[in-house]
Amino acid sequence: MIKVTLKDGSCKEMKKGITVIETAESISQGLARAATAGEVNGKTVDLRYRLNEDCALNILTFDDPEGRMAYWHTTSHILAQAVKRLYPNVKLAIGPAIETGFYYDFDVEKPFTPEQLADIENEMQKIIKEDLPVDRFTLSREEALKFVNDAGEIYKAELISELPEDAEISFYRQGEFTDLCAGPHLLSTGKVKAVKLINLAGAYWRGNEKNKMLQRIYGVSFPKKSMLDEHIAKLEEAKKRDHNKIGRELGIFMTSEPIGQGLPLLMPKGAKVMQILQRFVEDEEEKRGYLRTMTPYLAKSELYKISGHWQHYRDGMFVLGDEEKDEEVFALRPMTCPFQFMIYNSRLHSYRDLPVRLAETSTLFRNESSGEMHGLIRVRQFTISEGHIITTPEQLEEEFLGAVDLINYMLDTLGLKEDVTYRFSKWDPDNKEKYIDNPEAWEDTQAKMKKILDHIGLPYVEAVGEAAFYGPKLDIQFRNVHGKEDTIITVQIDFSLAERFDMTYIDRNNEKKRPYIIHRTSIGCYERTLAMLIEKYAGAFPTWLSPVQVKVLPIIDKQNEYAENVANRLRSLGVRVEVDSRNEKIGYKIREAQLEKIPYMLVIGDKEMQNGQVAVRSRKEGDLGPMDLNRFAEMITEEIATRAK
Amino acid sequence: MIKVTLKDGSCKEMKKGITVIETAESISQGLARAATAGEVNGKTVDLRYRLNEDCALNILTFDDPEGRMAYWHTTSHILAQAVKRLYPNVKLAIGPAIETGFYYDFDVEKPFTPEQLADIENEMQKIIKEDLPVDRFTLSREEALKFVNDAGEIYKAELISELPEDAEISFYRQGEFTDLCAGPHLLSTGKVKAVKLINLAGAYWRGNEKNKMLQRIYGVSFPKKSMLDEHIAKLEEAKKRDHNKIGRELGIFMTSEPIGQGLPLLMPKGAKVMQILQRFVEDEEEKRGYLRTMTPYLAKSELYKISGHWQHYRDGMFVLGDEEKDEEVFALRPMTCPFQFMIYNSRLHSYRDLPVRLAETSTLFRNESSGEMHGLIRVRQFTISEGHIITTPEQLEEEFLGAVDLINYMLDTLGLKEDVTYRFSKWDPDNKEKYIDNPEAWEDTQAKMKKILDHIGLPYVEAVGEAAFYGPKLDIQFRNVHGKEDTIITVQIDFSLAERFDMTYIDRNNEKKRPYIIHRTSIGCYERTLAMLIEKYAGAFPTWLSPVQVKVLPIIDKQNEYAENVANRLRSLGVRVEVDSRNEKIGYKIREAQLEKIPYMLVIGDKEMQNGQVAVRSRKEGDLGPMDLNRFAEMITEEIATRAK
Repeated sequence: MIKVTLKDGSCKEMKKGITVIETAESISQGLARAATAGEVNGKTVDLRYRLNEDCALNILTFDDPEGRMAYWHTTSHILAQAVKRLYPNVKLAIGPAIETGFYYDFDVEKPFTPEQLADIENEMQKIIKEDLPVDRFTLSREEALKFVNDAGEIYKAELISELPEDAEISFYRQGEFTDLCAGPHLLSTGKVKAVKLINLAGAYWRGNEKNKMLQRIYGVSFPKKSMLDEHIAKLEEAKKRDHNKIGRELGIFMTSEPIGQGLPLLMPKGAKVMQILQRFVEDEEEKRGYLRTMTPYLAKSELYKISGHWQHYRDGMFVLGDEEKDEEVFALRPMTCPFQFMIYNSRLHSYRDLPVRLAETSTLFRNESSGEMHGLIRVRQFTISEGHIITTPEQLEEEFLGAVDLINYMLDTLGLKEDVTYRFSKWDPDNKEKYIDNPEAWEDTQAKMKKILDHIGLPYVEAVGEAAFYGPKLDIQFRNVHGKEDTIITVQIDFSLAERFDMTYIDRNNEKKRPYIIHRTSIGCYERTLAMLIEKYAGAFPTWLSPVQVKVLPIIDKQNEYAENVANRLRSLGVRVEVDSRNEKIGYKIREAQLEKIPYMLVIGDKEMQNGQVAVRSRKEGDLGPMDLNRFAEMITEEIATRAK
Repeated sequence: MIKVTLKDGSCKEMKKGITVIETAESISQGLARAATAGEVNGKTVDLRYRLNEDCALNILTFDDPEGRMAYWHTTSHILAQAVKRLYPNVKLAIGPAIETGFYYDFDVEKPFTPEQLADIENEMQKIIKEDLPVDRFTLSREEALKFVNDAGEIYKAELISELPEDAEISFYRQGEFTDLCAGPHLLSTGKVKAVKLINLAGAYWRGNEKNKMLQRIYGVSFPKKSMLDEHIAKLEEAKKRDHNKIGRELGIFMTSEPIGQGLPLLMPKGAKVMQILQRFVEDEEEKRGYLRTMTPYLAKSELYKISGHWQHYRDGMFVLGDEEKDEEVFALRPMTCPFQFMIYNSRLHSYRDLPVRLAETSTLFRNESSGEMHGLIRVRQFTISEGHIITTPEQLEEEFLGAVDLINYMLDTLGLKEDVTYRFSKWDPDNKEKYIDNPEAWEDTQAKMKKILDHIGLPYVEAVGEAAFYGPKLDIQFRNVHGKEDTIITVQIDFSLAERFDMTYIDRNNEKKRPYIIHRTSIGCYERTLAMLIEKYAGAFPTWLSPVQVKVLPIIDKQNEYAENVANRLRSLGVRVEVDSRNEKIGYKIREAQLEKIPYMLVIGDKEMQNGQVAVRSRKEGDLGPMDLNRFAEMITEEIATRAK
């Protein structure tokens, strides 16, 4: 007999060798029905896993992230089984569960059509109805290789041949279908209830552009039809907000094949929002005592050798030239720090000069691989409200608080404050080569940072292995419409670069000291922030951020001149106005302005012209009726000046 | 006998074989004394040149650019002779005349010291006094090689071995000194009157960093001592205005060895001026109907192959990757055109949409060689107020005029209008490979442009071979304090890229047409404009452009609080203010603020504090006496708002 401690703290005596599913059955039939996997001493296991010693057991269901992964993983096998039934010549690559469902990559001659996708989904329903039991078995390396080679599955053979010597090689079988897989999996195909194939994409084998392009089918599944319906509705809503879709439709940005992936072009409307954001940030930072710099976007490798980027970050950098051949090798900068440090070092500093707060609207470059690009969120070139605060140890907390205060002010003004979460990103002591090698300083600085964070009272989570190579970070996280989380803003405490750059100040006692450095941004990377704003507002920006704030719509030609006068009056107050004087019906003009998400439409008919009025239509509130032009001008300039949400 | 036509149109019969100097003597002894070279049928020749057939002859003196070159060239030989007399082991490289004098490069073990320079100058005076006749002789290639090898002059040997097969190899001899040289030269060393060695610099043999570093001595000479004195006074004045000197002293910019040459860092004061300039330009362009874009700084080689940059401009580009090895090769952009063209092409255009005026605050990169870098004027990365106007042929003239009008407005506002000259830069039909190959379109477009320029009435000069590879240009030129001319602003008419990028519009008759493109900038490259402004104003910018506009100077500590209040009141009006509350004497504070070229100093004593006043000291006009704070605030905000010069 062994002792099994359950999640609720209760302890049960069980027969040694009992499986996870049997244990679940011993608790309740309901739990057993819902069970998708187990967690033994913190490790996810199969429902078939046998308990052979005392342990802590947690029965996982679809409600648990890891339980959901097992559910989706089994569904991906059902997908592969359906494809093999319909298209026996297709070769299987990989088919994992992911955060939002699952996918499977197939080597197939022609991309699947939407009709084929429907057929495949039907076949999956059949396999679910057949409720085929799912079995697990293991093979030796040679047996496994023979098994997949006999089946002609060349990708599986490649995977097996790369497994470590001592790896257990397991397979899962359901009916006529068997797949190489580490599991865990559900006990039968009938456990999957509602399933939907979501979309199709090309994907290189192993994500490498030099390999063959495979066809990836994405899908998702749920234990209840209602959950699937809800999920699909959410996806539909997300699509309407997806910055990568509506950002293009609204003329905010575009990409271009000959320019390349991850290099978006901001079109006039996007560039206008960017200009508004940049001026807002630059002016606010100036008010808060930041000094602006403008430093070059490339530098010789020498600079990055001092900073450590060459040693710790080279793969992420665009390098110009070849160290073996060229006298000078340059690299595009991935960060602004070493450049601003050179400015700090251009003169001596006394403790009286500190803190020095340097800010820059800084363009950076990161050599991301093609597969990782996404709209304005993951790009190869971006511009960030970068800055470095050089402080004495005594000023560290106050300056950190100041940086967080500025961030909160920015997020609040943009209306994004409720949408972010906070992450305390620490180093990983088990992965030392990724970091500056100074464990004591890491622990000391992390302790300092934790104290500050606790003092501020931000609701943060801790994340090991997410620090910068030179220090721990506070990351401010945002989820895009697809549920993917990204860092948008970060504040870092750096205990090491001041030494590498020999940065000093003279303290009260006339001694040379090393300052601390806070690396921080206020609004983050502008492209990413713009993406967030598009998704948050579904393209309907607050008036102060709207590239076009007012559209004047004369009903017929003879009102065009008055319409131009109205526009010019508003322009003279700094309002961004367009006039739609095309020879089109007024209903059509309104619909179009609505689609462009213009905050205010001013309809001009004879009555308005005679009375010096405008008929105001708000994007948000609909028809506001006729209004004196002066009153409207007052209203909108007030709305812009206060940056109303 | 031959017929010689002189500059004044008169025609003389001369004996065949007469030399240029003999002809000069036949005209007047004064002319013969002043003569430095001749020009026969438009070609510069030596005074020793024999006239063997009818020709047009112009006797050149120091007042002619080419005559001055001969004068300076002989002085450079005197320099080399003096060096060889004092340091016989020194090897000679090259010693040409340049626009501002002459130099000679020497291979010498240790750089010359200022004392050695004085010795050399003395020795040159001796050689001039000796009035050594200068003779010319020619040798066959083998003889020439033997001659320089016997003298141990390895650099001369290298030069000879690279001369074309049929080149005449000439030498000039003065006393014991002989130099390989194509001439022309004065007739004796005594013709040189006043000489001065200006400075010393390192220079690689043939300008290539892989070669040995030589020592270059720069000098200048004049026919009169008074001319030399005037020249030296000018140089002293230039030094005080040299942006590369005072721009650094005033904390406007710096460079950094590990970052690299040609990559200046704008420090807070420089970045502030840049921000003011950029906002000024962006806002003015918006008023004039430009749409702003923000496009990426790098693109795949594919893009530059379409534009022709890859074929015509590749040497000037920073390339990332290797076409032989890498799937994607990127290059940093040297121009914005192809990027904005992609935006134009992202939708269809009707003639009603034209002109489309696109503008960008655009960072560009040019891979200049190290030797060519200069302060903020010649750099590897710069930001330009770039823009492209896409027009119908009918709109071309009006849009060109609009572009020139904007430029004139900018130059006028900056106070630079009187300092520029205009150049009409045309292609070179004898050097076709540098240009898009379409002679007819070149001639046609140049004719169009000439008509427009003549219509505007700008006083331009024509320059063959200075066009862009895709079309002719109007260049606006500025001379820096060293007398070197650079282009700061350009407007180009492009007849060819619309075709390469397949840019079209639909005309009135519903037919697809090719637009013209005007490439233009309004203020030019910001770094270069900043350099011009520094040199124009010797760092004392007009108030609206000054990074710090007011410095408040409390006399003693107890006035510090009032000083801060004064500063905050002015800041709330958008004025850039610093307070100098250091414990220093008021005279010292004023001197320092004066050195920093702050437009206004507000001295605060007890009386000012009691009366709510400030004692105003203008950088330009000196002490203006006490003034109510409100009156000063009104005065300075008015000065800023009107961008007073």
